[in-house]
Amino acid sequence: MIVCDGSNGAGKSTLIKSIEGYLKSKKQKVLVTREPGGTPIGEGIRHILLNPDTPEMCDTTELMLFAAARAQHIQEKILPNIQDGRIVICDRFDSATVSFQHYARGLPLSLINQLNEIALDGFRPDITIILDLDPLIGLERVKLRGEGLDRLEKQDMEFLNRARDGYLKQAENDPEHFAIIDASQPIKKVESDVFDILDKLLMS
Amino acid sequence: MIVCDGSNGAGKSTLIKSIEGYLKSKKQKVLVTREPGGTPIGEGIRHILLNPDTPEMCDTTELMLFAAARAQHIQEKILPNIQDGRIVICDRFDSATVSFQHYARGLPLSLINQLNEIALDGFRPDITIILDLDPLIGLERVKLRGEGLDRLEKQDMEFLNRARDGYLKQAENDPEHFAIIDASQPIKKVESDVFDILDKLLMS
Repeated sequence: MIVCDGSNGAGKSTLIKSIEGYLKSKKQKVLVTREPGGTPIGEGIRHILLNPDTPEMCDTTELMLFAAARAQHIQEKILPNIQDGRIVICDRFDSATVSFQHYARGLPLSLINQLNEIALDGFRPDITIILDLDPLIGLERVKLRGEGLDRLEKQDMEFLNRARDGYLKQAENDPEHFAIIDASQPIKKVESDVFDILDKLLMS
Repeated sequence: MIVCDGSNGAGKSTLIKSIEGYLKSKKQKVLVTREPGGTPIGEGIRHILLNPDTPEMCDTTELMLFAAARAQHIQEKILPNIQDGRIVICDRFDSATVSFQHYARGLPLSLINQLNEIALDGFRPDITIILDLDPLIGLERVKLRGEGLDRLEKQDMEFLNRARDGYLKQAENDPEHFAIIDASQPIKKVESDVFDILDKLLMS
């Protein structure tokens, strides 16, 4: 399983398409999915989580909703597809919860690990690729796409910067399972950096 | 805080109206609410939880959704109303999660306690009144009302019987915080049993 994560607007969707194409060119079976979501139940939870009209959502509720969607995603979709021999590529995953709910929101890491462990049931991704970008630039890109901002994107810049730092710290603490890619580079360079990582994984 | 819980069709809604009237006649300020739900976010979660078209929902997801709705309910509605001097009457609460997810579904009690503790953040109801009724009779009453069955009511009779036993066991283990009322009695007798309990609470 490969996770693409990082600031909004860092180019996750584009990169995921490139990874999908690259892996298929290597004759791999691939499934692309996303969090929160990925299943009908999870997409319903996503709708609640990202609804910009509910600023009253409390931190614990948010954390539990992410974990609920993740548990469903793992059991219903990710594990069965891996068992069928597919490589699962996921847009955001447990790394996002650690960044946003711990580093940005300030919830205790122990609580987040507790809920992630329940949701993941012993499973973990092979690699989490962090597209690292100044959130200010990322947000400009999101606005240029003409999309409205969701509840999490509407947080202030300090919040988004703390989340970014959280990704960098996770990668620092666990270099074996994380890779940081500078998302301010030209897309071709981002891709070649990522393809190098995939080549190593496919050989291992 | 007073919780009314028990099998579906045992008469919780009717009893809650009676309790509300009784407490108001005693010049108490009262708020009536329900779980899962009670807040706009919680009602959204309720919709996902009770949707009869998603039999694929996994047990952990279900548990976390109940806990997420409960955390929001506590922070946004229950605690502020109690601080304002109201008595909160709630249709179902943590007792339902212990009965349905532990005794009926078989999830470990430690996991359920863990999530309830996170959601409740140290709070607990003063009394949980269990309306005890054979689920078969309860389900007949629900059908007589002409309502469709939700995802949990669609479980088999053994499941519903295990949930009922779970309520009885919880009450047995913690008689100070639980009261069992025989819901097969005439409504007037049910009410007078419950009013006796409320009188004792109001005096304490």
